[in-house]
Amino acid sequence: MRPPVPLTGVIPPMCTPLTPTGDVDTRSLAALTRRLLDAGVHGLFALGSTGEVAYLTDAQRRTALETVVEAAAGRVPVLAGVIDTTTARMRDHAAGAAASGADALVATAPFYTRTHPAEIADHFRRLRAGTELPLFAYDIPAAVHTKLTAAIVLPLAADGTLAGLKDSSGQVEEARRLLVAARDRGLGERFSVLTGSEMAVDGALLAGVHGVVPGLGNVDPHGYLRLYAHARAGRWAEAAAEQDRLAALFALTETGDPARMGGSSSALGGFKAALHLLGVIDCPATAAPQVPLEAAAVDRVRKFLDDAGLTA
Amino acid sequence: MRPPVPLTGVIPPMCTPLTPTGDVDTRSLAALTRRLLDAGVHGLFALGSTGEVAYLTDAQRRTALETVVEAAAGRVPVLAGVIDTTTARMRDHAAGAAASGADALVATAPFYTRTHPAEIADHFRRLRAGTELPLFAYDIPAAVHTKLTAAIVLPLAADGTLAGLKDSSGQVEEARRLLVAARDRGLGERFSVLTGSEMAVDGALLAGVHGVVPGLGNVDPHGYLRLYAHARAGRWAEAAAEQDRLAALFALTETGDPARMGGSSSALGGFKAALHLLGVIDCPATAAPQVPLEAAAVDRVRKFLDDAGLTA
Amino acid sequence: MRPPVPLTGVIPPMCTPLTPTGDVDTRSLAALTRRLLDAGVHGLFALGSTGEVAYLTDAQRRTALETVVEAAAGRVPVLAGVIDTTTARMRDHAAGAAASGADALVATAPFYTRTHPAEIADHFRRLRAGTELPLFAYDIPAAVHTKLTAAIVLPLAADGTLAGLKDSSGQVEEARRLLVAARDRGLGERFSVLTGSEMAVDGALLAGVHGVVPGLGNVDPHGYLRLYAHARAGRWAEAAAEQDRLAALFALTETGDPARMGGSSSALGGFKAALHLLGVIDCPATAAPQVPLEAAAVDRVRKFLDDAGLTA
Amino acid sequence: MRPPVPLTGVIPPMCTPLTPTGDVDTRSLAALTRRLLDAGVHGLFALGSTGEVAYLTDAQRRTALETVVEAAAGRVPVLAGVIDTTTARMRDHAAGAAASGADALVATAPFYTRTHPAEIADHFRRLRAGTELPLFAYDIPAAVHTKLTAAIVLPLAADGTLAGLKDSSGQVEEARRLLVAARDRGLGERFSVLTGSEMAVDGALLAGVHGVVPGLGNVDPHGYLRLYAHARAGRWAEAAAEQDRLAALFALTETGDPARMGGSSSALGGFKAALHLLGVIDCPATAAPQVPLEAAAVDRVRKFLDDAGLTA
Repeated sequence: MRPPVPLTGVIPPMCTPLTPTGDVDTRSLAALTRRLLDAGVHGLFALGSTGEVAYLTDAQRRTALETVVEAAAGRVPVLAGVIDTTTARMRDHAAGAAASGADALVATAPFYTRTHPAEIADHFRRLRAGTELPLFAYDIPAAVHTKLTAAIVLPLAADGTLAGLKDSSGQVEEARRLLVAARDRGLGERFSVLTGSEMAVDGALLAGVHGVVPGLGNVDPHGYLRLYAHARAGRWAEAAAEQDRLAALFALTETGDPARMGGSSSALGGFKAALHLLGVIDCPATAAPQVPLEAAAVDRVRKFLDDAGLTA
Repeated sequence: MRPPVPLTGVIPPMCTPLTPTGDVDTRSLAALTRRLLDAGVHGLFALGSTGEVAYLTDAQRRTALETVVEAAAGRVPVLAGVIDTTTARMRDHAAGAAASGADALVATAPFYTRTHPAEIADHFRRLRAGTELPLFAYDIPAAVHTKLTAAIVLPLAADGTLAGLKDSSGQVEEARRLLVAARDRGLGERFSVLTGSEMAVDGALLAGVHGVVPGLGNVDPHGYLRLYAHARAGRWAEAAAEQDRLAALFALTETGDPARMGGSSSALGGFKAALHLLGVIDCPATAAPQVPLEAAAVDRVRKFLDDAGLTA
Repeated sequence: MRPPVPLTGVIPPMCTPLTPTGDVDTRSLAALTRRLLDAGVHGLFALGSTGEVAYLTDAQRRTALETVVEAAAGRVPVLAGVIDTTTARMRDHAAGAAASGADALVATAPFYTRTHPAEIADHFRRLRAGTELPLFAYDIPAAVHTKLTAAIVLPLAADGTLAGLKDSSGQVEEARRLLVAARDRGLGERFSVLTGSEMAVDGALLAGVHGVVPGLGNVDPHGYLRLYAHARAGRWAEAAAEQDRLAALFALTETGDPARMGGSSSALGGFKAALHLLGVIDCPATAAPQVPLEAAAVDRVRKFLDDAGLTA
Repeated sequence: MRPPVPLTGVIPPMCTPLTPTGDVDTRSLAALTRRLLDAGVHGLFALGSTGEVAYLTDAQRRTALETVVEAAAGRVPVLAGVIDTTTARMRDHAAGAAASGADALVATAPFYTRTHPAEIADHFRRLRAGTELPLFAYDIPAAVHTKLTAAIVLPLAADGTLAGLKDSSGQVEEARRLLVAARDRGLGERFSVLTGSEMAVDGALLAGVHGVVPGLGNVDPHGYLRLYAHARAGRWAEAAAEQDRLAALFALTETGDPARMGGSSSALGGFKAALHLLGVIDCPATAAPQVPLEAAAVDRVRKFLDDAGLTA
């Protein structure tokens, strides 16, 4: 299915459940997909950072994406990450994603290599030229180590290279500048800005973003859907209250001991522990070489779920 | 005067006008102070980054602060930056600021040196122990190169070391985490979070910040005061529209040619060019070794003022 | 062939010549291989950063590696980069490299994702467990954004996980610390430290590194071989003089206009322009989206070659 | 006394001993000065990062500098750091240092503020114009967060603004580029490059630096003097062996627990603990808010001193 223009709503970046031996757990992934669909999400984003795309082999990426596409059954659009170091490699992933049934692609700027705004723009143009699918830029400086500024993104929005931006930079002022400029240029209705700042969704929607891509939406899709509905209805105080509740819940991403593990292990381990505790997935394992959460950390995850009323 | 607890409202970080020879232009600074007071600001922040504190000698800092205090005449509280590399040096500035009549102090974490969260906490406790004045922490990682996380700030809020936080980090998610946690601990009414994210004030107020410290408020205080009033009255759509207008105006900070000058030259030069064009200050010079804006850049500043309706 | 233990000498990280349409130019790559072998290099490193590994598809990587292996014909060991974001993906590359005839593997720490020293160590252990080939760690913080400290590397050297380290960090003090500690632990003769600091090879050899992996060695292998021979013979003044000459020649990596292109475009474009001017490769193109050097930049590359006496 | 041109030799960046209550311990500082002079150092650098300049008030800086100048008694030149955020503040320090009897000044680029190469060059020119004393640039990106590249430094060397560079960047390749270019321009005999890479002094001297500014030289001046003498006599193997010994000793800077303190606390605490154990200074305290070394860390410092033969 063609994604709506502009793409709006709640579009969770899906976790990729794994088996104890590190394979993609297709049963659990399909279950997660159906849970999100039943909650009413507006789209699904497979193979993003939350989906451990950087840890998955090409074969695992294909398995994961096909599982989501099949389980989604056309009910909502499926966006697929095509994350890799540079253009030619991402074009290979794009072809694979199209073959697997993705409805749109999500690509970062080149990374690992030293790049430049002109090269980043050319990169997205080449990616777009190689696919039939709408293309979303993925701004995640914590991973990519460059920032997709408004100056880079706006021309790519204007010429149709990009259908939208997934903004995981946390830099809400640069997002505001982009939103204002895009509206000034008449792009507001065809270029979709999706925020990944999952603890500031209320403000982002107030600023005019079209949708939200919350990792925590794997765990509590209803919360983000309520927040989105409040905002769309102008019930801003209610939106903020819901965001406050979700911000407290987000602490489940920080239960891991930083002396023993990195941020991905703790955050993605927290999401998966929660999904496991909620009975959605069979195994909370993250991909190697991430470090599993210790038992005490899982207990804290459970506590946060209890506090948020998700285990009643 | 004792600042209200919690401190709320619009508290512009004041520019420090200079003469063509680089002295503090006390006439212009007094005029700027009165203009802000007449607009209705709730406080004044002298000697912040926008005030070029890092460029001013100790003597110039004293002159600037005394000028603001005198012009403010007790109508609103005057916060004074005591920015320096470490504790003992900041304590000297704190004593000077108190002697000059400041009502509260604003201090960063140590910088230049390699520090640690435990050292940062001790730093603020030592500062607080050396002064009668309320102390605000100033989180500006772009200058200080460390982040004041919620984990650092909360205990300092709880034990009364800090009266508030000026958050110029741009990291609104960490701010949300802090706001939620502070309310959970019953600190919401005595610990003031002031945002420096001047293009995202609507969302910050929706998230619960107490006030705003906008550099652009030197140029358009009425805009920020309207935005603040809308938000406090729950007129969120109007607040967002005002913020959009101000976000467009903020482009006056980026007229400088990045091949010829740094970000401070462009941003602070933009503010001062605007104040000069508006007739508030006599000379748009920034402190050496900052590079003056070229004439074409000043023309663009004028254009942004026109577009914002400030030159009518 | 099994690489010697420890691996020593000059081991250039090979450029990957491309055709005008972006395919691997196998004729030119074979010619480059033979030129380096005829000069007397002690090993070849294919698919490193200088080889544009981050820009090559899996198919291109295979073509390039097989071309080098075939042209090397067993005269020296061929090291192959298996650069990718994380462990499982690198294991796939490792299997491919082994099938293509590589003699050893070179792998970075995980990147794109947020990692941790314990995860990095586990990553290398898992890589090593999945291959018969000796494994070299590749420390290149400019690309990977973490540093392989002595504290991470030493245990992996001691337990046989790593056969060596390619140090492209530029942090010679950390390298010294590693070298001293490795010798203290009796690892000096079985753990090979190879420096990528191609403008400081004399000092690195004086400090005890085993070999050198200079990108500029594509252009002037004889220079690095002379430098290496001087150092091994204790002719340190002559080594330093040769290094000075090569340091001046290295300026050919910086002819690109930084307003128009990134550092990879300029550096890799400089190497390839030089190889093209020297008649070694047919086309100087770098992989998209890198920006080609302008004609004036190529003229400057030619001038540097002239000055270095390479075009006589 | 006028420093020799170029300045050469071993010029330790002196620690600033403190009393238990945090005052400058002038007795201990004079003792340290005499110890270094008696060892035969070629100059003294007071008020550098190792001297905790960032922690000292203006009054303490003056006391410390006057103590060193008096104890040096004209036997060697005394360089004084004038570290502060920007030009005007550094000019104030420069005037004070000249009044206190300094023979040369050492200044960083502006920090805290966002700067630009053109502004940095102007900064040094303004500093130089305001003083009679020779001016050395201090390149310490870990503190200042910009790098003094060869492109910035060379014109300032050529026009006489700078008498030299203290390179604490650790970027030996950029230093090589500078050294080669300076010699090409005939500046080798009047522009002095001093390395702060105290674990790579042998290679730096081989590359042509004029002198060394080792923090560890506070603890073991004789070691650095032997290393320097070996290098100047062309005994490179002996130089390297001495450097290896000193690199092992440098581990005394890393005994502090990184979970409890920052890098300055550990490194400066290690130097001071060593000086205290050696009977040179009365109290090992570092300036607040640095964290004191725990007893076990001090025991490790003692062990490193024993291993290096300094406690015999």
